[in-house]
Amino acid sequence: MTSILKSFNLKTKAYCDVINITEQVQQLIINSEINIGIVNVHNAGSTGAISTVEYEPGLVKHDIKDLFEKLIPYDKNYAHHKTWHDNNGAGHLRSFLVKSSQTFPFRHKKLILGTWQQIIFLECNEKSRSRTIHCTIMGE
Amino acid sequence: MTSILKSFNLKTKAYCDVINITEQVQQLIINSEINIGIVNVHNAGSTGAISTVEYEPGLVKHDIKDLFEKLIPYDKNYAHHKTWHDNNGAGHLRSFLVKSSQTFPFRHKKLILGTWQQIIFLECNEKSRSRTIHCTIMGE
Amino acid sequence: MTSILKSFNLKTKAYCDVINITEQVQQLIINSEINIGIVNVHNAGSTGAISTVEYEPGLVKHDIKDLFEKLIPYDKNYAHHKTWHDNNGAGHLRSFLVKSSQTFPFRHKKLILGTWQQIIFLECNEKSRSRTIHCTIMGE
Repeated sequence: MTSILKSFNLKTKAYCDVINITEQVQQLIINSEINIGIVNVHNAGSTGAISTVEYEPGLVKHDIKDLFEKLIPYDKNYAHHKTWHDNNGAGHLRSFLVKSSQTFPFRHKKLILGTWQQIIFLECNEKSRSRTIHCTIMGE
Repeated sequence: MTSILKSFNLKTKAYCDVINITEQVQQLIINSEINIGIVNVHNAGSTGAISTVEYEPGLVKHDIKDLFEKLIPYDKNYAHHKTWHDNNGAGHLRSFLVKSSQTFPFRHKKLILGTWQQIIFLECNEKSRSRTIHCTIMGE
Repeated sequence: MTSILKSFNLKTKAYCDVINITEQVQQLIINSEINIGIVNVHNAGSTGAISTVEYEPGLVKHDIKDLFEKLIPYDKNYAHHKTWHDNNGAGHLRSFLVKSSQTFPFRHKKLILGTWQQIIFLECNEKSRSRTIHCTIMGE
C-alpha cells in the first residue's frame, strides 16, 4: 500500500457557490500509481465544505441556496460577528454542519460515484475566495 | 498494511427508509484478513446517505422522518423538479446534507461503536430502490 | 505504510458542549511514527459528533447552540422518549445529522487545517458525559 497527498486550487464566488470538483479529484487519482483505494478530499478552512450532489442548475443555483437561507440565513446577527466585527457567522455554521472533508472509494483508478453524483466544494463565505483542496490518495 | 473493497446490496423502501447495515459491514471485516484499521462505507448515488443512529422505532420510524420533513420537506416545488420533471429534489438535498459516506475504526475485527450506535443507510429517494454499499477496509 | 489506533478521554458538559480537541489529535500524530497521511477521529456513541469550527466564544457558546435549538430543539416530545422513557431524542438526532466521525489529512506530522479551523467534539446529550475519542492514524 502507498499514500500520496496532492492538492489543487479553486477560485470561488461569494455566498453559496457550488463548484464541481469531480474531474480534479479523478485526475489526481489517474496521475497517481494507485489503482484501488480511498481518497480523502479536504478543505483547510472554516467557511467551506465538501459533499456530493447532482450538479444541475436547479439544485446548484437555487435549491441548495434556498435550503441554507432557511436553515442558516446570511442576514442574521450572529454572536460570531461581535467577536471579530465581521459578517460571516452563517458561513462558519454552514461549514460546521456540512463539514470540511469527505472520503470516497475508487477502483481501476475510477471514483465510485452514482451516475448523477458529483463531488462538490461549497463556498460558505460571504466573500469570494481562493481555496486549496487537499486530496490524500491511499491504496494499492 | 492491506486494503480490500467489498460491497453488498440493499432493497429500500421509498421516503426516508432507515436501514441498519451494521451487521453487513461487520461481517465484511470478519471475512477480511484485516484485524485493525478503518472501513469507509459509501453509497454511490445522489439520493442516499450514511450515518449512525440508535436503531429503535421511535427514532427510525418517526423522529428522523419528522426532522427531515421540517428541514427539507418532500412536498415542495424544488427548482430541481424543473430540470428533470421528476419529484426528488428533497431526496437530493437530504443526501447532500447527511452525505453519502462515513469512515469508522475497528480493532480485533470489531467495529468501534457505542452500545446504542448502529451504522445506517438512509434512503432519501421518493421511490424504493436497489442500493449497493461499497466498503473499503484498510489496515493490518 | 502503517496504521495505529490511539484514544483519549474527555469530560463533557450537558447540552451542546463544544470542546476543542485539535491539540489532542495533533499530539497523537506527533507521538506516532507517521509523517504524512490521514487521521480518522471517531466517537463511539450515538449522542456525540465530530466536526470543525472556529473555536471562538460567539460560535461555540451561542451560535451553534442557537442553530441546534432551531433545527432540533431539546424541549420537544420526540418519539424516542417513549421507547426508553428518557429525554435525549434531540441528542440522538443532532449526532445523526453531524455524524460521529471525520477524517483529516496531515503532513510533516502537522494537521492540515485552516488558520481559524479547529477540530471539535460536540456533546449532544442532555447529561454531562465521559467520552473516548478514537484516532486511527494511517500513512507513512
